Amino acid sequence: MAHLVIVGGSDAGTSAALRAREVDPGLEVTMLLADRYPNFSVCGLPYYIGGEVADFASMAHRSPTAIEGFGVRLLMEHTATAIDAAARALDVHAPDGSTLRLRYDRLIVATGAQAIRPSIPGTDLPGVFVMRSAADALAVDEYLRDTGATSAAIVGGGYIGCEMAEAFRRRGLRVTLLEAAPAPIPNLDPELGALAAAALTGEGVEVRAGTAVRAITQRRDDSGSRHHVPLQVHCDSGEAATADVVLLAVGVRPVTTLAESAGVRLGVRGAIGVTRRLETSVAGIYAAGDCAETWHRMLQRPAYLPLGSTAHKQGRVAGENAAGGDREFEGSLGTQVVKVYDLVVARTGLLEREVREAGLDAVTADWQGHDHKPYYPGAIAVRVRLTAERGTGRLLGAQIGGHRHAEIARRIDVCATAIATGLSVRQLEDMDLSYTPPLGTPWDVLQQAAIRLQGIGSRE
Amino acid sequence: MAHLVIVGGSDAGTSAALRAREVDPGLEVTMLLADRYPNFSVCGLPYYIGGEVADFASMAHRSPTAIEGFGVRLLMEHTATAIDAAARALDVHAPDGSTLRLRYDRLIVATGAQAIRPSIPGTDLPGVFVMRSAADALAVDEYLRDTGATSAAIVGGGYIGCEMAEAFRRRGLRVTLLEAAPAPIPNLDPELGALAAAALTGEGVEVRAGTAVRAITQRRDDSGSRHHVPLQVHCDSGEAATADVVLLAVGVRPVTTLAESAGVRLGVRGAIGVTRRLETSVAGIYAAGDCAETWHRMLQRPAYLPLGSTAHKQGRVAGENAAGGDREFEGSLGTQVVKVYDLVVARTGLLEREVREAGLDAVTADWQGHDHKPYYPGAIAVRVRLTAERGTGRLLGAQIGGHRHAEIARRIDVCATAIATGLSVRQLEDMDLSYTPPLGTPWDVLQQAAIRLQGIGSRE
Repeated sequence: MAHLVIVGGSDAGTSAALRAREVDPGLEVTMLLADRYPNFSVCGLPYYIGGEVADFASMAHRSPTAIEGFGVRLLMEHTATAIDAAARALDVHAPDGSTLRLRYDRLIVATGAQAIRPSIPGTDLPGVFVMRSAADALAVDEYLRDTGATSAAIVGGGYIGCEMAEAFRRRGLRVTLLEAAPAPIPNLDPELGALAAAALTGEGVEVRAGTAVRAITQRRDDSGSRHHVPLQVHCDSGEAATADVVLLAVGVRPVTTLAESAGVRLGVRGAIGVTRRLETSVAGIYAAGDCAETWHRMLQRPAYLPLGSTAHKQGRVAGENAAGGDREFEGSLGTQVVKVYDLVVARTGLLEREVREAGLDAVTADWQGHDHKPYYPGAIAVRVRLTAERGTGRLLGAQIGGHRHAEIARRIDVCATAIATGLSVRQLEDMDLSYTPPLGTPWDVLQQAAIRLQGIGSRE
Repeated sequence: MAHLVIVGGSDAGTSAALRAREVDPGLEVTMLLADRYPNFSVCGLPYYIGGEVADFASMAHRSPTAIEGFGVRLLMEHTATAIDAAARALDVHAPDGSTLRLRYDRLIVATGAQAIRPSIPGTDLPGVFVMRSAADALAVDEYLRDTGATSAAIVGGGYIGCEMAEAFRRRGLRVTLLEAAPAPIPNLDPELGALAAAALTGEGVEVRAGTAVRAITQRRDDSGSRHHVPLQVHCDSGEAATADVVLLAVGVRPVTTLAESAGVRLGVRGAIGVTRRLETSVAGIYAAGDCAETWHRMLQRPAYLPLGSTAHKQGRVAGENAAGGDREFEGSLGTQVVKVYDLVVARTGLLEREVREAGLDAVTADWQGHDHKPYYPGAIAVRVRLTAERGTGRLLGAQIGGHRHAEIARRIDVCATAIATGLSVRQLEDMDLSYTPPLGTPWDVLQQAAIRLQGIGSRE
């Protein structure tokens, strides 16, 4: 019986395991994971810290028992230390301290990503955390409980930084959010990031954008107690933020050490290089999820866009191929959405600066309309920013912001579908979208923006 | 100066007028309408009856002043009575009783549709209404106020019927909804219509489906007062519903008398036949909106799908072409959404029976998932029904139902975009849709349904 070994039990690994068993029920599948939290929704961690999710275990997409129910052998707290690609074998460190050697016919590396600790002094001080794994969340939660911390500084105002600012506020902490870019959520254009800044400020978060952090320090205390010795976060601007807890949220990098031991080629931003079938450069070894490159559907080239939704899709493709199937990963558009209090901001495709980097000539239109007819109660202003290729009008990117009841996430999905299928803004205008006064307008706000963009393009 | 005359000042007419002035600012544009409510949102009328919209005038998409601000001459309370196509002239009945003859170079007929009064006895009794125009809504409102009516029967459980059931309930009336089909909203498959039935029943509406109405009667009252003489609505089943007010909501038919006076060809279901440029069979005369055929984007043939969103789009195309432009209407997919209390149900593309009528062989999958990760509070069950062509997997139709905060309308828009671009369910599965735990799942419920459908298709 052929043996598929999967290293990593998060979204990509679990998706791969389940799909492989589905495609070939005769396949022996072993999935190793370093902790005890398979298929755990790391995107949910801020909601646990914030108290919106009380049951930690509920954040697993599937329980260990459910995964084993698919016929997957689950080795928890097992760490793969090296791959012998010639022998098709894996060295594994077991929880009892022993080492075992696992033979495989196919191997899927799904080792994920780790939080970046920026190269500044003080990131190893007590009270400094990252938020990437289940263990990180439990550690922060315990620290908050044990120390009675009343303030937090967050280094990095991306999605996790903003979500954690809300989470800490919900726990009653005073929160300072520090972002080097001009506005939070730097993977949105600043016009949309400003909405997030306003949402946070309105809830009492102190947002300091445009300033980089250069050190974290802590005054020594003769008593030896660190509980009442706050940390100082020093900025380029000369300002410092004082906080009991510091969260580093400056992004992630792919975990590739294991894959490198097999000699696989690394690609974009140090992620494991893969084909669209999710094959690495070494025969029999696949990679999927946050440790691997993704395929950018619009740019038609590799990119590094570590996202949960992509990890699930890549895992499924890798699992199918490792089980003898033949499927290509169709690619990502960097579609992302984040909720910050009642604000939702989302993007798909390229930002203006990414359009320029790609050497494309583009027109961008900003538009504000309503989610539904304003005569019906509760209409919400929706901010839309569309970017299209000059001349052809091909939709290249969309960014949308508005209240969480304004169907922002699904509007970005309409744009993602339009971009994936190569629609122009004129073709978007022509889509037969749904309308009823409490839920829409005869021309959806996306179509209004598309019409606006054509007007700008034709005048230039 | 060339003169464009538009007959009808609702959505199609107004969209045409504005677009024509935009394309050719030198064009003289005259728009006639029979009442005093140009560009009035007839889709909003139930919310006025139900009291959710207090300001009647707010339901106009644009005010007369705003329309005139675009340089459109607005002739309100003017009724066109005949077209002399050879002379390119229009006979018009003015509000002062006089008749005038308007010369035109181009004419756009946008006379809309009228509510069908079924061919049964009693539809002309006092207390029997339809709900199509601003005047209809004002008349019903006045009647309810004057008579102190406490009960209503609605004949027809389509979108308007369901919305009016909610509206009457909001005004405190006892409501009986009568629908000949097995479930309300017969332009959904009964599986989705059943959700609407449950939503209405849960709010105290008596839903009687599967029974046709054969007569409406009223006992004569010697006192001459009709206020306390209820109407009786008699059904095929032998049952009768007693109500102070009866609303006929069995659909609409195109208003074509004027166009027929010009000799235009009628098409599907008696609607004015038009090309994709919205030209009628008579030179110089265009038609748009609910009086005209629409182009079915998937079936690639004419259909009659009178909807506000389509009227806006057709009007814009007709206006552009009448002003010398050249644009084709890309077509409809019958995308529709309705809110019934907190339930939203929506469709796009073909129902199962329409697939059969079109001679296509299809697979349908029913799926229930969640709008967002269930571990985050407030997750909502979403019902999805996807229909795809057997073999190719091409998406042919989608129906979705769920709570109004579950982004149902925009999910159907994703499907409408997918159908318009010819995606298969497998390609839908591969879309890079947005995910964050409070607003989605790693595989959106649409993609879960698409995966499910492939599983069914491959097993058969």
